[in-house]
Amino acid sequence: MRASCILLCFFMFLAVSSAYPGKKKQYKPCKEFVLYFHDILYNGKNAANATSAIVAAPEGANLTILAGQNHFGNIIVFDDPITLDNNLHSPPVGRAQGMYIYDTKNTFTSWLSFTFALNSTQHQGTISFIGADPILVKSRDISVVGGTGDFFMHRGIATIGTDAFEGDVYFRLHVDIKFYECW
Amino acid sequence: MRASCILLCFFMFLAVSSAYPGKKKQYKPCKEFVLYFHDILYNGKNAANATSAIVAAPEGANLTILAGQNHFGNIIVFDDPITLDNNLHSPPVGRAQGMYIYDTKNTFTSWLSFTFALNSTQHQGTISFIGADPILVKSRDISVVGGTGDFFMHRGIATIGTDAFEGDVYFRLHVDIKFYECW
Amino acid sequence: MRASCILLCFFMFLAVSSAYPGKKKQYKPCKEFVLYFHDILYNGKNAANATSAIVAAPEGANLTILAGQNHFGNIIVFDDPITLDNNLHSPPVGRAQGMYIYDTKNTFTSWLSFTFALNSTQHQGTISFIGADPILVKSRDISVVGGTGDFFMHRGIATIGTDAFEGDVYFRLHVDIKFYECW
Repeated sequence: MRASCILLCFFMFLAVSSAYPGKKKQYKPCKEFVLYFHDILYNGKNAANATSAIVAAPEGANLTILAGQNHFGNIIVFDDPITLDNNLHSPPVGRAQGMYIYDTKNTFTSWLSFTFALNSTQHQGTISFIGADPILVKSRDISVVGGTGDFFMHRGIATIGTDAFEGDVYFRLHVDIKFYECW
Repeated sequence: MRASCILLCFFMFLAVSSAYPGKKKQYKPCKEFVLYFHDILYNGKNAANATSAIVAAPEGANLTILAGQNHFGNIIVFDDPITLDNNLHSPPVGRAQGMYIYDTKNTFTSWLSFTFALNSTQHQGTISFIGADPILVKSRDISVVGGTGDFFMHRGIATIGTDAFEGDVYFRLHVDIKFYECW
Repeated sequence: MRASCILLCFFMFLAVSSAYPGKKKQYKPCKEFVLYFHDILYNGKNAANATSAIVAAPEGANLTILAGQNHFGNIIVFDDPITLDNNLHSPPVGRAQGMYIYDTKNTFTSWLSFTFALNSTQHQGTISFIGADPILVKSRDISVVGGTGDFFMHRGIATIGTDAFEGDVYFRLHVDIKFYECW
Protein backbone atom coordinates (compact mmCIF):
# COMPACT_ATOMS: atom_id res chain seq x y z
CA MET A 1 0.00 0.00 0.00
CA ARG A 2 2.80 2.33 0.82
CA ALA A 3 4.33 1.45 -2.52
CA SER A 4 1.23 2.48 -4.38
CA CYS A 5 1.11 5.73 -2.53
CA ILE A 6 4.74 6.49 -3.19
CA LEU A 7 4.32 5.72 -6.86
CA LEU A 8 1.21 7.82 -7.15
CA CYS A 9 2.80 10.62 -5.18
CA PHE A 10 5.93 10.49 -7.26
CA PHE A 11 3.91 10.70 -10.43
CA MET A 12 2.07 13.68 -9.05
CA PHE A 13 5.28 15.32 -8.02
CA LEU A 14 6.63 14.96 -11.53
CA ALA A 15 3.48 16.41 -12.94
CA VAL A 16 3.97 19.45 -10.78
CA SER A 17 7.64 20.20 -11.05
CA SER A 18 8.16 19.81 -14.77
CA ALA A 19 6.31 19.08 -17.98
CA TYR A 20 2.91 17.45 -18.41
CA PRO A 21 3.80 15.11 -21.25
CA GLY A 22 1.03 13.57 -23.24
CA LYS A 23 -1.73 15.42 -21.52
CA LYS A 24 -2.01 18.41 -23.80
CA LYS A 25 -5.49 17.62 -24.95
CA GLN A 26 -6.97 17.22 -21.49
CA TYR A 27 -6.64 20.84 -20.43
CA LYS A 28 -9.89 22.61 -19.76
CA PRO A 29 -10.02 26.22 -18.63
CA CYS A 30 -10.65 26.67 -14.91
CA LYS A 31 -12.45 29.90 -15.80
CA GLU A 32 -13.60 31.33 -19.15
CA PHE A 33 -15.56 34.33 -20.38
CA VAL A 34 -15.92 36.57 -23.40
CA LEU A 35 -15.54 40.35 -23.45
CA TYR A 36 -15.44 42.95 -26.20
CA PHE A 37 -13.46 46.13 -26.44
CA HIS A 38 -13.91 49.08 -28.72
CA ASP A 39 -11.15 51.26 -30.14
CA ILE A 40 -11.90 54.66 -31.69
CA LEU A 41 -8.69 56.12 -33.08
CA TYR A 42 -8.09 59.86 -32.97
CA ASN A 43 -7.86 61.22 -36.52
CA GLY A 44 -7.63 64.96 -35.87
CA LYS A 45 -11.40 65.48 -36.00
CA ASN A 46 -12.96 63.14 -33.42
CA ALA A 47 -11.36 64.33 -30.17
CA ALA A 48 -14.62 64.00 -28.23
CA ASN A 49 -15.17 60.32 -29.03
CA ALA A 50 -11.67 59.00 -29.60
CA THR A 51 -10.43 56.39 -27.11
CA SER A 52 -6.95 55.95 -28.59
CA ALA A 53 -4.25 58.04 -30.21
CA ILE A 54 -1.21 57.52 -32.40
CA VAL A 55 1.70 58.70 -30.27
CA ALA A 56 4.70 57.48 -32.23
CA ALA A 57 5.34 57.07 -35.92
CA PRO A 58 8.26 56.33 -38.21
CA GLU A 59 10.16 59.08 -40.02
CA GLY A 60 7.95 61.05 -42.40
CA ALA A 61 4.64 59.97 -40.89
CA ASN A 62 2.36 62.04 -38.65
CA LEU A 63 0.10 61.48 -35.65
CA THR A 64 -3.34 61.83 -37.20
CA ILE A 65 -3.02 59.40 -40.10
CA LEU A 66 -1.78 55.83 -39.76
CA ALA A 67 1.57 55.44 -41.49
CA GLY A 68 2.06 53.98 -44.97
CA GLN A 69 3.57 50.53 -45.40
CA ASN A 70 0.86 48.82 -43.37
CA HIS A 71 1.18 51.37 -40.57
CA PHE A 72 4.60 49.90 -39.72
CA GLY A 73 6.09 51.76 -36.78
CA ASN A 74 2.95 53.34 -35.34
CA ILE A 75 2.45 53.06 -31.60
CA ILE A 76 -1.11 53.59 -30.42
CA VAL A 77 -1.99 54.25 -26.78
CA PHE A 78 -5.53 53.33 -25.77
CA ASP A 79 -8.12 53.48 -23.02
CA ASP A 80 -10.98 51.55 -24.56
CA PRO A 81 -14.35 50.64 -23.05
CA ILE A 82 -14.97 46.94 -22.41
CA THR A 83 -18.49 45.58 -22.85
CA LEU A 84 -20.20 42.25 -22.27
CA ASP A 85 -21.71 42.21 -25.76
CA ASN A 86 -20.70 43.64 -29.10
CA ASN A 87 -22.56 46.94 -28.67
CA LEU A 88 -20.33 50.00 -28.27
CA HIS A 89 -23.13 51.69 -26.35
CA SER A 90 -23.63 48.95 -23.76
CA PRO A 91 -22.62 49.94 -20.23
CA PRO A 92 -18.87 49.38 -19.93
CA VAL A 93 -17.66 46.82 -17.37
CA GLY A 94 -14.11 48.15 -17.41
CA ARG A 95 -11.35 49.67 -19.52
CA ALA A 96 -8.73 48.10 -21.75
CA GLN A 97 -5.56 50.14 -21.22
CA GLY A 98 -2.16 49.86 -22.84
CA MET A 99 -0.73 50.02 -26.31
CA TYR A 100 -0.46 48.33 -29.65
CA ILE A 101 2.17 48.59 -32.32
CA TYR A 102 1.88 48.03 -36.05
CA ASP A 103 4.98 46.00 -36.69
CA THR A 104 5.19 44.72 -40.25
CA LYS A 105 5.92 46.49 -43.50
CA ASN A 106 4.29 44.11 -45.94
CA THR A 107 1.14 42.94 -44.17
CA PHE A 108 -1.08 44.01 -41.26
CA THR A 109 0.20 42.66 -37.98
CA SER A 110 0.35 44.26 -34.60
CA TRP A 111 1.89 43.53 -31.23
CA LEU A 112 -0.22 44.05 -28.14
CA SER A 113 0.54 44.70 -24.52
CA PHE A 114 -2.32 45.85 -22.34
CA THR A 115 -4.38 45.35 -19.20
CA PHE A 116 -8.11 44.89 -18.66
CA ALA A 117 -9.15 46.86 -15.56
CA LEU A 118 -12.55 45.34 -14.73
CA ASN A 119 -14.94 46.99 -12.34
CA SER A 120 -18.41 45.49 -12.40
CA THR A 121 -20.65 43.47 -10.13
CA GLN A 122 -19.34 40.37 -11.89
CA HIS A 123 -15.59 41.04 -11.97
CA GLN A 124 -13.24 43.21 -9.92
CA GLY A 125 -9.58 43.10 -10.85
CA THR A 126 -7.07 43.28 -13.64
CA ILE A 127 -5.90 40.91 -16.37
CA SER A 128 -2.69 41.58 -18.34
CA PHE A 129 -2.00 40.40 -21.89
CA ILE A 130 0.96 40.21 -24.30
CA GLY A 131 1.15 38.84 -27.78
CA ALA A 132 1.62 39.02 -31.49
CA ASP A 133 -1.56 39.78 -33.39
CA PRO A 134 -1.63 38.75 -37.06
CA ILE A 135 -4.67 40.92 -37.68
CA LEU A 136 -5.79 39.32 -40.93
CA VAL A 137 -6.04 35.86 -39.35
CA LYS A 138 -9.57 35.20 -38.13
CA SER A 139 -8.70 33.89 -34.68
CA ARG A 140 -5.37 34.33 -32.91
CA ASP A 141 -4.01 33.48 -29.46
CA ILE A 142 -2.20 35.82 -27.11
CA SER A 143 -0.87 35.16 -23.60
CA VAL A 144 -2.57 36.13 -20.35
CA VAL A 145 0.51 36.78 -18.22
CA GLY A 146 -0.93 37.90 -14.91
CA GLY A 147 -3.88 39.10 -12.91
CA THR A 148 -4.92 40.82 -9.70
CA GLY A 149 -8.11 40.97 -7.57
CA ASP A 150 -10.57 38.30 -8.75
CA PHE A 151 -7.84 37.16 -11.12
CA PHE A 152 -5.09 36.93 -8.50
CA MET A 153 -2.08 35.12 -10.02
CA HIS A 154 -4.15 33.79 -12.95
CA ARG A 155 -2.55 32.83 -16.25
CA GLY A 156 -4.06 31.65 -19.52
CA ILE A 157 -4.70 32.24 -23.17
CA ALA A 158 -6.96 34.79 -24.85
CA THR A 159 -8.32 34.03 -28.30
CA ILE A 160 -9.01 37.32 -30.05
CA GLY A 161 -10.85 38.11 -33.23
CA THR A 162 -11.69 41.32 -35.06
CA ASP A 163 -15.43 41.49 -34.63
CA ALA A 164 -15.90 44.64 -36.70
CA PHE A 165 -13.92 47.51 -38.16
CA GLU A 166 -14.69 50.75 -39.95
CA GLY A 167 -11.79 52.07 -41.98
CA ASP A 168 -8.94 53.33 -39.85
CA VAL A 169 -11.18 54.80 -37.16
CA TYR A 170 -13.01 52.00 -35.33
CA PHE A 171 -12.46 48.38 -34.52
CA ARG A 172 -13.97 45.98 -32.03
CA LEU A 173 -12.16 42.95 -30.65
CA HIS A 174 -13.87 39.79 -29.40
CA VAL A 175 -11.75 38.44 -26.54
CA ASP A 176 -12.32 34.88 -25.31
CA ILE A 177 -10.34 34.68 -22.07
CA LYS A 178 -9.45 31.15 -20.95
CA PHE A 179 -7.64 30.79 -17.65
CA TYR A 180 -5.75 27.54 -17.06
CA GLU A 181 -4.15 28.59 -13.81
CA CYS A 182 -6.72 30.06 -11.46
CA TRP A 183 -5.56 29.91 -7.81
CA MET B 1 -6.01 3.23 3.92
CA ARG B 2 -5.30 3.07 0.25
CA ALA B 3 -8.68 4.67 -0.33
CA SER B 4 -7.85 7.59 1.89
CA CYS B 5 -4.54 8.08 0.14
CA ILE B 6 -6.13 7.99 -3.29
CA LEU B 7 -8.74 10.46 -2.20
CA LEU B 8 -6.19 12.79 -0.69
CA CYS B 9 -3.94 12.45 -3.69
CA PHE B 10 -6.76 13.05 -6.08
CA PHE B 11 -7.75 16.16 -4.21
CA MET B 12 -4.17 17.37 -4.36
CA PHE B 13 -3.94 16.61 -8.03
CA LEU B 14 -7.02 18.68 -8.66
CA ALA B 15 -5.58 21.50 -6.63
CA VAL B 16 -2.52 21.48 -8.84
CA SER B 17 -3.92 21.13 -12.30
CA SER B 18 -6.77 23.59 -12.11
CA ALA B 19 -8.38 26.06 -9.72
CA TYR B 20 -7.91 26.36 -5.97
CA PRO B 21 -11.54 26.93 -5.02
CA GLY B 22 -12.30 28.34 -1.63
CA LYS B 23 -8.70 28.84 -0.59
CA LYS B 24 -8.21 32.41 -1.74
CA LYS B 25 -7.69 33.77 1.75
CA GLN B 26 -5.04 31.25 2.74
CA TYR B 27 -2.33 32.47 0.40
CA LYS B 28 0.71 33.90 2.07
CA PRO B 29 3.64 35.26 0.07
CA CYS B 30 6.63 32.92 -0.08
CA LYS B 31 8.83 36.04 -0.23
CA GLU B 32 8.04 39.72 0.36
CA PHE B 33 9.94 42.99 0.52
CA VAL B 34 9.45 46.70 -0.03
CA LEU B 35 11.48 48.89 -2.37
CA TYR B 36 11.18 52.49 -3.53
CA PHE B 37 11.95 54.02 -6.86
CA HIS B 38 12.42 57.63 -7.81
CA ASP B 39 11.47 59.22 -11.11
CA ILE B 40 12.84 62.64 -12.14
CA LEU B 41 11.26 63.65 -15.43
CA TYR B 42 13.25 65.66 -17.97
CA ASN B 43 11.62 69.06 -18.47
CA GLY B 44 14.14 70.75 -20.76
CA LYS B 45 16.19 72.20 -17.90
CA ASN B 46 17.23 69.32 -15.65
CA ALA B 47 19.26 67.15 -18.00
CA ALA B 48 21.90 66.40 -15.36
CA ASN B 49 19.49 64.95 -12.80
CA ALA B 50 16.64 63.60 -14.92
CA THR B 51 16.13 59.82 -14.85
CA SER B 52 13.25 59.70 -17.33
CA ALA B 53 12.12 61.41 -20.52
CA ILE B 54 8.95 61.90 -22.50
CA VAL B 55 9.64 60.19 -25.81
CA ALA B 56 6.20 60.09 -27.40
CA ALA B 57 3.25 62.43 -27.27
CA PRO B 58 -0.06 62.89 -29.03
CA GLU B 59 -0.52 65.36 -31.89
CA GLY B 60 0.13 68.93 -30.84
CA ALA B 61 2.07 68.09 -27.67
CA ASN B 62 5.83 68.29 -27.16
CA LEU B 63 8.53 66.33 -25.34
CA THR B 64 9.39 68.67 -22.48
CA ILE B 65 5.91 69.31 -21.09
CA LEU B 66 3.44 66.57 -20.21
CA ALA B 67 0.48 66.70 -22.58
CA GLY B 68 -2.88 68.30 -21.78
CA GLN B 69 -5.93 66.11 -21.14
CA ASN B 70 -4.31 64.32 -18.18
CA HIS B 71 -1.14 63.67 -20.18
CA PHE B 72 -3.09 61.18 -22.34
CA GLY B 73 -0.79 59.70 -24.92
CA ASN B 74 2.58 60.43 -23.34
CA ILE B 75 5.09 57.60 -23.23
CA ILE B 76 7.87 58.04 -20.69
CA VAL B 77 11.05 55.94 -20.76
CA PHE B 78 12.86 55.62 -17.44
CA ASP B 79 15.98 54.37 -15.71
CA ASP B 80 15.19 55.17 -12.09
CA PRO B 81 17.26 54.44 -8.97
CA ILE B 82 15.76 51.91 -6.53
CA THR B 83 16.37 52.41 -2.82
CA LEU B 84 15.60 50.46 0.35
CA ASP B 85 14.04 53.47 2.03
CA ASN B 86 12.22 56.55 0.82
CA ASN B 87 15.33 58.73 0.54
CA LEU B 88 16.33 59.64 -3.02
CA HIS B 89 19.92 60.00 -1.85
CA SER B 90 20.22 56.55 -0.26
CA PRO B 91 22.61 54.22 -2.07
CA PRO B 92 20.68 52.61 -4.93
CA VAL B 93 20.26 48.81 -4.85
CA GLY B 94 19.33 48.65 -8.52
CA ARG B 95 17.55 50.37 -11.38
CA ALA B 96 13.90 50.38 -12.45
CA GLN B 97 13.95 50.31 -16.25
CA GLY B 98 11.10 50.40 -18.72
CA MET B 99 8.25 52.69 -19.58
CA TYR B 100 4.95 54.11 -18.49
CA ILE B 101 2.11 55.54 -20.50
CA TYR B 102 -0.50 58.08 -19.49
CA ASP B 103 -3.60 56.48 -20.88
CA THR B 104 -6.76 58.31 -19.96
CA LYS B 105 -8.18 61.60 -21.14
CA ASN B 106 -10.41 62.46 -18.19
CA THR B 107 -8.43 61.32 -15.14
CA PHE B 108 -4.87 60.40 -14.22
CA THR B 109 -4.14 56.78 -14.94
CA SER B 110 -1.07 55.16 -16.36
CA TRP B 111 -0.04 51.77 -17.64
CA LEU B 112 3.28 50.33 -16.55
CA SER B 113 5.67 47.81 -17.98
CA PHE B 114 9.14 47.67 -16.49
CA THR B 115 11.86 45.58 -14.88
CA PHE B 116 13.72 45.95 -11.59
CA ALA B 117 17.40 45.10 -12.18
CA LEU B 118 18.67 44.51 -8.62
CA ASN B 119 22.33 44.39 -7.83
CA SER B 120 23.09 44.50 -4.12
CA THR B 121 24.43 42.20 -1.43
CA GLN B 122 20.84 41.30 -0.64
CA HIS B 123 19.39 40.72 -4.11
CA GLN B 124 20.86 39.83 -7.50
CA GLY B 125 18.44 39.43 -10.36
CA THR B 126 15.53 40.93 -12.20
CA ILE B 127 11.79 41.23 -11.56
CA SER B 128 9.38 42.21 -14.36
CA PHE B 129 6.05 43.98 -13.85
CA ILE B 130 2.96 44.84 -15.92
CA GLY B 131 -0.21 46.57 -14.93
CA ALA B 132 -2.74 49.33 -14.95
CA ASP B 133 -2.01 52.11 -12.49
CA PRO B 134 -4.98 54.26 -11.44
CA ILE B 135 -2.64 56.88 -9.99
CA LEU B 136 -5.16 58.65 -7.81
CA VAL B 137 -6.06 55.47 -5.92
CA LYS B 138 -3.96 55.15 -2.77
CA SER B 139 -2.91 51.53 -3.20
CA ARG B 140 -3.08 49.55 -6.43
CA ASP B 141 -2.00 46.07 -7.52
CA ILE B 142 0.05 45.19 -10.59
CA SER B 143 1.31 41.79 -11.76
CA VAL B 144 4.80 40.43 -11.27
CA VAL B 145 5.10 38.35 -14.43
CA GLY B 146 8.61 36.93 -14.25
CA GLY B 147 12.02 36.97 -12.69
CA THR B 148 15.62 35.89 -13.14
CA GLY B 149 18.60 35.28 -10.83
CA ASP B 150 17.46 35.24 -7.19
CA PHE B 151 13.93 35.59 -8.57
CA PHE B 152 14.19 32.72 -11.03
CA MET B 153 10.69 31.93 -12.38
CA HIS B 154 8.99 33.91 -9.59
CA ARG B 155 5.51 35.36 -9.98
CA GLY B 156 3.43 37.52 -7.71
CA ILE B 157 1.69 40.80 -7.06
CA ALA B 158 3.17 44.21 -6.34
CA THR B 159 1.14 46.73 -4.40
CA ILE B 160 2.27 50.19 -5.37
CA GLY B 161 1.54 53.59 -3.88
CA THR B 162 2.65 57.11 -4.68
CA ASP B 163 4.83 57.93 -1.71
CA ALA B 164 5.56 61.50 -2.78
CA PHE B 165 5.37 63.75 -5.80
CA GLU B 166 6.48 67.27 -6.70
CA GLY B 167 4.56 68.79 -9.58
CA ASP B 168 5.33 67.15 -12.89
CA VAL B 169 9.02 66.63 -12.15
CA TYR B 170 9.43 64.11 -9.33
CA PHE B 171 7.55 61.15 -7.93
CA ARG B 172 8.47 58.28 -5.68
CA LEU B 173 6.71 54.92 -5.70
CA HIS B 174 6.48 52.56 -2.74
CA VAL B 175 6.51 49.01 -4.12
CA ASP B 176 5.50 46.12 -1.87
CA ILE B 177 6.53 43.01 -3.81
CA LYS B 178 4.76 39.81 -2.78
CA PHE B 179 5.83 36.61 -4.50
CA TYR B 180 3.39 33.70 -4.38
CA GLU B 181 5.37 31.44 -6.68
CA CYS B 182 9.00 31.27 -5.61
CA TRP B 183 10.69 28.11 -6.94
CA MET C 1 1.38 3.84 6.68
CA ARG C 2 -1.34 6.38 6.53
CA ALA C 3 0.92 8.68 8.53
CA SER C 4 3.73 8.36 6.04
CA CYS C 5 1.38 9.11 3.19
CA ILE C 6 -0.04 12.14 4.91
CA LEU C 7 3.44 13.43 5.64
CA LEU C 8 4.59 12.85 2.09
CA CYS C 9 1.46 14.38 0.70
CA PHE C 10 1.73 17.34 2.98
CA PHE C 11 5.28 17.93 1.90
CA MET C 12 4.21 17.73 -1.72
CA PHE C 13 1.36 20.09 -1.10
CA LEU C 14 3.75 22.60 0.39
CA ALA C 15 6.03 22.23 -2.58
CA VAL C 16 3.15 23.14 -4.83
CA SER C 17 1.51 26.00 -3.04
CA SER C 18 4.54 27.98 -2.04
CA ALA C 19 8.33 28.04 -2.37
CA TYR C 20 10.69 25.25 -3.38
CA PRO C 21 13.36 25.89 -0.77
CA GLY C 22 16.77 24.38 -1.24
CA LYS C 23 16.08 22.90 -4.62
CA LYS C 24 17.27 25.74 -6.80
CA LYS C 25 20.12 23.79 -8.33
CA GLN C 26 18.03 20.81 -9.36
CA TYR C 27 15.99 22.57 -12.00
CA LYS C 28 16.50 21.35 -15.53
CA PRO C 29 14.61 22.85 -18.45
CA CYS C 30 11.69 20.72 -19.64
CA LYS C 31 12.39 22.09 -23.14
CA GLU C 32 15.32 24.07 -24.54
CA PHE C 33 16.46 25.38 -27.92
CA VAL C 34 18.51 28.16 -29.46
CA LEU C 35 17.32 30.67 -32.05
CA TYR C 36 18.85 33.77 -33.60
CA PHE C 37 17.20 36.96 -34.66
CA HIS C 38 18.48 39.72 -36.89
CA ASP C 39 17.74 43.42 -36.55
CA ILE C 40 18.43 45.85 -39.40
CA LEU C 41 17.66 49.37 -38.24
CA TYR C 42 16.23 51.91 -40.67
CA ASN C 43 18.69 54.79 -41.10
CA GLY C 44 17.00 56.80 -43.84
CA LYS C 45 18.75 54.94 -46.68
CA ASN C 46 18.01 51.23 -46.23
CA ALA C 47 14.22 51.13 -46.49
CA ALA C 48 14.25 47.97 -48.60
CA ASN C 49 16.20 45.87 -46.10
CA ALA C 50 15.38 47.44 -42.76
CA THR C 51 13.44 45.27 -40.30
CA SER C 52 13.13 47.86 -37.53
CA ALA C 53 12.60 51.59 -37.14
CA ILE C 54 13.12 54.26 -34.50
CA VAL C 55 9.62 55.54 -33.75
CA ALA C 56 10.17 57.63 -30.65
CA ALA C 57 13.05 59.75 -29.49
CA PRO C 58 13.75 62.29 -26.76
CA GLU C 59 13.59 66.04 -27.37
CA GLY C 60 16.07 67.19 -29.99
CA ALA C 61 16.70 63.76 -31.51
CA ASN C 62 15.36 62.47 -34.82
CA LEU C 63 14.09 59.18 -36.22
CA THR C 64 16.91 58.16 -38.54
CA ILE C 65 19.87 58.46 -36.16
CA LEU C 66 20.00 56.88 -32.73
CA ALA C 67 19.95 59.56 -30.05
CA GLY C 68 23.00 60.85 -28.21
CA GLN C 69 23.60 59.90 -24.58
CA ASN C 70 23.70 56.16 -25.31
CA HIS C 71 20.49 56.38 -27.35
CA PHE C 72 18.56 57.08 -24.13
CA GLY C 73 14.89 57.49 -24.92
CA ASN C 74 14.75 55.79 -28.31
CA ILE C 75 11.94 53.31 -28.89
CA ILE C 76 12.52 50.90 -31.75
CA VAL C 77 9.72 48.80 -33.25
CA PHE C 78 10.83 45.62 -34.99
CA ASP C 79 9.73 42.70 -37.11
CA ASP C 80 12.93 40.68 -37.33
CA PRO C 81 13.53 37.33 -39.04
CA ILE C 82 14.33 34.39 -36.73
CA THR C 83 16.76 31.73 -37.96
CA LEU C 84 18.03 28.41 -36.64
CA ASP C 85 21.66 29.37 -37.17
CA ASN C 86 23.57 32.66 -37.17
CA ASN C 87 23.18 33.31 -40.92
CA LEU C 88 20.92 36.23 -41.80
CA HIS C 89 20.18 34.56 -45.13
CA SER C 90 19.03 31.23 -43.72
CA PRO C 91 15.33 30.50 -44.24
CA PRO C 92 13.44 32.23 -41.41
CA VAL C 93 11.45 30.01 -39.01
CA GLY C 94 9.42 32.92 -37.70
CA ARG C 95 9.43 36.61 -36.80
CA ALA C 96 10.47 38.43 -33.63
CA GLN C 97 7.95 41.23 -33.17
CA GLY C 98 7.76 43.93 -30.55
CA MET C 99 9.91 46.74 -29.32
CA TYR C 100 13.05 47.70 -27.47
CA ILE C 101 13.93 50.86 -25.63
CA TYR C 102 17.33 52.35 -24.95
CA ASP C 103 16.96 53.31 -21.32
CA THR C 104 20.17 54.60 -19.80
CA LYS C 105 22.03 57.85 -20.25
CA ASN C 106 25.52 56.76 -19.22
CA THR C 107 25.87 53.25 -20.63
CA PHE C 108 24.21 51.01 -23.21
CA THR C 109 21.25 49.17 -21.78
CA SER C 110 17.91 48.41 -23.28
CA TRP C 111 14.58 47.07 -22.15
CA LEU C 112 12.86 44.45 -24.29
CA SER C 113 9.30 43.34 -24.72
CA PHE C 114 8.53 41.17 -27.71
CA THR C 115 7.05 37.96 -29.05
CA PHE C 116 8.51 35.19 -31.19
CA ALA C 117 5.88 34.08 -33.73
CA LEU C 118 7.23 30.71 -34.90
CA ASN C 119 5.92 29.01 -37.97
CA SER C 120 8.04 26.09 -39.12
CA THR C 121 7.79 22.33 -39.34
CA GLN C 122 9.49 22.19 -35.94
CA HIS C 123 7.58 24.85 -34.00
CA GLN C 124 4.14 26.43 -34.34
CA GLY C 125 3.21 29.03 -31.77
CA THR C 126 4.29 32.13 -29.92
CA ILE C 127 6.65 32.87 -27.05
CA SER C 128 6.58 36.23 -25.23
CA PHE C 129 9.53 37.85 -23.47
CA ILE C 130 10.17 40.77 -21.11
CA GLY C 131 13.35 41.95 -19.52
CA ALA C 132 16.19 44.34 -18.91
CA ASP C 133 19.09 43.96 -21.34
CA PRO C 134 22.45 45.28 -20.14
CA ILE C 135 23.82 45.11 -23.68
CA LEU C 136 27.50 45.24 -22.81
CA VAL C 137 27.26 42.16 -20.57
CA LYS C 138 28.12 39.02 -22.52
CA SER C 139 25.20 36.88 -21.39
CA ARG C 140 22.01 38.17 -19.78
CA ASP C 141 18.72 36.60 -18.67
CA ILE C 142 15.24 37.80 -19.52
CA SER C 143 11.87 36.28 -18.60
CA VAL C 144 9.71 34.12 -20.82
CA VAL C 145 6.29 35.16 -19.57
CA GLY C 146 3.90 33.20 -21.75
CA GLY C 147 3.32 31.09 -24.80
CA THR C 148 0.67 29.77 -27.16
CA GLY C 149 0.38 26.85 -29.61
CA ASP C 150 3.27 24.42 -29.07
CA PHE C 151 4.26 26.63 -26.15
CA PHE C 152 0.83 26.69 -24.52
CA MET C 153 1.17 28.22 -21.01
CA HIS C 154 4.95 27.78 -21.00
CA ARG C 155 7.22 29.92 -18.83
CA GLY C 156 10.97 30.10 -18.54
CA ILE C 157 14.16 32.06 -18.94
CA ALA C 158 15.94 33.16 -22.11
CA THR C 159 19.66 33.77 -22.02
CA ILE C 160 20.53 36.26 -24.71
CA GLY C 161 23.85 37.37 -26.12
CA THR C 162 24.87 39.79 -28.86
CA ASP C 163 26.25 37.45 -31.46
CA ALA C 164 27.32 40.18 -33.89
CA PHE C 165 26.77 43.86 -34.57
CA GLU C 166 27.74 46.31 -37.29
CA GLY C 167 27.69 49.92 -36.16
CA ASP C 168 24.19 51.20 -35.50
CA VAL C 169 22.61 49.31 -38.38
CA TYR C 170 22.74 45.57 -37.69
CA PHE C 171 22.82 43.27 -34.71
CA ARG C 172 22.14 39.61 -34.20
CA LEU C 173 20.98 38.10 -30.93
CA HIS C 174 21.64 34.53 -29.82
CA VAL C 175 18.61 33.42 -27.76
CA ASP C 176 18.86 30.29 -25.63
CA ILE C 177 15.27 29.58 -24.58
CA LYS C 178 14.90 27.39 -21.49
CA PHE C 179 11.39 26.47 -20.45
CA TYR C 180 10.91 25.30 -16.86
CA GLU C 181 7.13 25.14 -17.01
CA CYS C 182 6.01 23.22 -20.06
CA TRP C 183 2.46 21.83 -19.62
